Amino acid sequence: MKSDIEIARAAHKLPITKIAAKLDLVADDYLPYGHDKAKLTHAVVNRLKQAPRGKLVLVTSINPTPAGEGKTTTSVGLGDALNRIGKKAVICLREPSLGPNFGMKGGAAGGGYSQVIPMEDINLHFTGDFHAISSANNLLAAMIDNHIHWGNDLRFDTRRVTWRRVVDMNDRALRDITVALGGPSNGYPRETGFDISVASEVMAILCLAEDLSDLKARLARIIVGYNLDKQPITAADLKADGAMTALLKDALQPNLVQTIENNPVLIHGGPFANIAHGCNSVIATKTALALGDYVVTEAGFGADLGAEKFFNIKCRKAGLSPDAVVVVATIRALKMNGGVAKSELAAENTQALKKGSVNLIRHIQNVQKFGLPVVVAINHFVTDTESEIAVLNEVCENLGVQAILCRHWSEGGAGAEELAHAVAKLADQNEAQLQLLYDDQLPLWEKVQKVAREIYGAADVSADPAVLKQLEQWQAAGFGDLPVCMAKTQYSFSADPTALGAPSGHIIPVREVKLSAGAGFIVVICGSIMTMPGLPRVPAAEHISLNENNEIQGLS
Amino acid sequence: MKSDIEIARAAHKLPITKIAAKLDLVADDYLPYGHDKAKLTHAVVNRLKQAPRGKLVLVTSINPTPAGEGKTTTSVGLGDALNRIGKKAVICLREPSLGPNFGMKGGAAGGGYSQVIPMEDINLHFTGDFHAISSANNLLAAMIDNHIHWGNDLRFDTRRVTWRRVVDMNDRALRDITVALGGPSNGYPRETGFDISVASEVMAILCLAEDLSDLKARLARIIVGYNLDKQPITAADLKADGAMTALLKDALQPNLVQTIENNPVLIHGGPFANIAHGCNSVIATKTALALGDYVVTEAGFGADLGAEKFFNIKCRKAGLSPDAVVVVATIRALKMNGGVAKSELAAENTQALKKGSVNLIRHIQNVQKFGLPVVVAINHFVTDTESEIAVLNEVCENLGVQAILCRHWSEGGAGAEELAHAVAKLADQNEAQLQLLYDDQLPLWEKVQKVAREIYGAADVSADPAVLKQLEQWQAAGFGDLPVCMAKTQYSFSADPTALGAPSGHIIPVREVKLSAGAGFIVVICGSIMTMPGLPRVPAAEHISLNENNEIQGLS
Repeated sequence: MKSDIEIARAAHKLPITKIAAKLDLVADDYLPYGHDKAKLTHAVVNRLKQAPRGKLVLVTSINPTPAGEGKTTTSVGLGDALNRIGKKAVICLREPSLGPNFGMKGGAAGGGYSQVIPMEDINLHFTGDFHAISSANNLLAAMIDNHIHWGNDLRFDTRRVTWRRVVDMNDRALRDITVALGGPSNGYPRETGFDISVASEVMAILCLAEDLSDLKARLARIIVGYNLDKQPITAADLKADGAMTALLKDALQPNLVQTIENNPVLIHGGPFANIAHGCNSVIATKTALALGDYVVTEAGFGADLGAEKFFNIKCRKAGLSPDAVVVVATIRALKMNGGVAKSELAAENTQALKKGSVNLIRHIQNVQKFGLPVVVAINHFVTDTESEIAVLNEVCENLGVQAILCRHWSEGGAGAEELAHAVAKLADQNEAQLQLLYDDQLPLWEKVQKVAREIYGAADVSADPAVLKQLEQWQAAGFGDLPVCMAKTQYSFSADPTALGAPSGHIIPVREVKLSAGAGFIVVICGSIMTMPGLPRVPAAEHISLNENNEIQGLS
Repeated sequence: MKSDIEIARAAHKLPITKIAAKLDLVADDYLPYGHDKAKLTHAVVNRLKQAPRGKLVLVTSINPTPAGEGKTTTSVGLGDALNRIGKKAVICLREPSLGPNFGMKGGAAGGGYSQVIPMEDINLHFTGDFHAISSANNLLAAMIDNHIHWGNDLRFDTRRVTWRRVVDMNDRALRDITVALGGPSNGYPRETGFDISVASEVMAILCLAEDLSDLKARLARIIVGYNLDKQPITAADLKADGAMTALLKDALQPNLVQTIENNPVLIHGGPFANIAHGCNSVIATKTALALGDYVVTEAGFGADLGAEKFFNIKCRKAGLSPDAVVVVATIRALKMNGGVAKSELAAENTQALKKGSVNLIRHIQNVQKFGLPVVVAINHFVTDTESEIAVLNEVCENLGVQAILCRHWSEGGAGAEELAHAVAKLADQNEAQLQLLYDDQLPLWEKVQKVAREIYGAADVSADPAVLKQLEQWQAAGFGDLPVCMAKTQYSFSADPTALGAPSGHIIPVREVKLSAGAGFIVVICGSIMTMPGLPRVPAAEHISLNENNEIQGLS
């Protein structure tokens, strides 16, 4: 088997003009970036968002494990397969972050024969969206310290500046820093830090904005800190929202690329799936719904975090309603959920598989609570045995859900045709009736409780009185109608990353709450969440370079 | 008179494909970025660099003053004028830095009717080159702290890490910072800081590299700090050069845009003109020399810094040889050099003009020392009087140099046709015979003395024994053949920014020396040089936004 980058490079890439033509787009509708990437213009986005017509298919998964699930790979494979069976399908994905490529994580453009190309570009600078987000974020940061330096008319409490700088790099040394040292001409020293760019609220805002004016309004609402009376200070107070919007103008346009089977993909935005909502942009999804009969999209992490936020945040705010949901699982990962060590995964173990299937079952049932029809995609690995596949089929059948073995990783779209037929059928039955988990009016704390109990299977939620008081203050200040954005370990239904399977009766400890007033949600942090990764002992960067043909090697 | 951005927006912009066609480039030769920008591919750059044929014209100027000189504007006007009189001319400019747009500096794409478009894009993210440079710079920084964190096999003296992070933003709070606070998982705390991206050595390297392999070799040579034996540690020691090259692969390709008169412009790279050499990339200049009969380019600041480095660093290293030099002056600026306050510049003052003309005279004579023919461009202002123009003409005539009144700012290329004829004539006479000011073999300290005495008119150079010892060490370590890159105030021939005119007999105090081993020069810092600007009390950012047509307003 070739490596991902070898497969990607060997693909027969069509000019992006041809991909656009498949979507009935003409030259004025997009801005080319090289011959293999394009941005759809604001004009065409605005024209199209009035005309959604496609069926929306969400791809989500069981809790991630080191065994690998392949959610993006399945989204790509399903999109290719839908096109193969004669459906006009568009895939919508998140943009990967640049920094982690130099750590140990592989890229995020699918894998095997289900990939999006040009994978090197998508994994590196792509069309510059994340750089624009970093610039907008850091302009706001510079304007805060500059304001304080020149007299602090807004009376910032410099101990309570909450806005941090960002860089799209894994750089642990920037997590906690002291700035403005060196004397009066450098400003007032204070403690702060950098997050990785995808953790910026600007990223979440870009992904939820309906258009440029909504973008500006959201940026204006960002709370950057508090004054000496503990009143919030916003980006609008600093008059930063206009310049930030100017910096983000191009970045708000969705990016068009293609799968290695030459089917259209919109890749746009990539917010963190813990402290943010973890889905591609609303603009890309809505544009795709006007361009395709079926739109395949994904949400970050497992369904407990990703799908829950996709429904309760993105769909709620954007008025979207999925027609079908695919839950991706692998037999390997379910065996890990059943207690098998990673080194033992190659051996058949139907007992462990049965035991671990409780994880899948919980996710399926959770999605069903939202009123949506589900199909399970078993992302095939060579070590899967007939007996194991039979066990998993039976588990799903017992829930009245179809489980379909998919071989798109090794075979491309051809390996997911059965899944494509099943998905199209589910979506076409028009049985989906999205029911959000809670109403806007439910008090913030009760929203948290509801997610914890009904999605995580928790007995309750705990929090310091200070956290509860903070939620009450926001409730009183008019933020009570916002949805909650849960930041919890992605590895478990509980807050303990080692508790695999389907733990119940646990307590979800809320450590901290944050108001993302621009994005429009309350971040509820359960346990320790890292917003700036570090590099490993031997970073992948050491092996990335150009080969003799000046092609990039070492990206995976 | 319309504002720059209004003029730029009203221009009839041709598709970039048409501009490329003017240069006999076909679709495979370039990568479009939108419909109005493109990058020439590495393949075409490599093909063309074997075939230089055009005449190289350097545009430089008197020392900058608050009155304004208009060097870029004159470069653009001259390029348009050459095309108007039937010459095939290509303009080569530096890319402007993003950050300063939000401070108070205007953009850097010319002005009035001599501008390069799309000016908003050029002044903001453009094709992402500076973001790529920031990423490469900051990957190296992250790899340094990561290496130390994981055991410090290279034995970094953490007090002697010289590599700093960068951001393309005016952010004074980042000048002096402490990183890696917060406990063991965040690394070893140390003092460091951020520079603005254009001050990165990576920028200077990109602008001096001949191709991708030269780029990688230069990146590998970057010295990032010293070990406990005071021996240098390089980017190659950290195995960072390959990944940095991958990040810069696209950025090394020159950008093609157009003037508002639809003539081709290559805009590529923009190193600082104090701690670096201040010219656009070697690759762009060489490519332009294969594409045009005349190439008009510029160097940063006045001729004492910009032209000196253009000759002694860029031309020396790249084997370039200019055919003519234009020295830009304004009557207003020369009156300031003659002692007139900015508020009094509108009044005729031939005495002050005569007195201040010593600044122009020194610059002309300096350029002539390099064996190059000179013409003076008087960039016209509405307040210039006939008597003043006559005085300036006489000053130049006395040196055997033609001075030509130019009205390109208000009239476009038509206003600089006389200049174009003069420049073409000078260049075509083939009288230029570039003589570098010093040989590679001259010891480093003598190179500094030579520049100070022969270009700045200084009596001598002073330095602490530690500086002299450092130079001797580099001399002994094999760096003695590098050119010196002088970092001095741009406002005066001396190190005192208030000493206008043509001061003589002064002492140039060298405060510090730095080895840019990747770029290939020794930076000689005379006085205080700022590598991270701050924002003013009322940043321009407060007035930048989108108008009702979603066009960017507030950029100047």
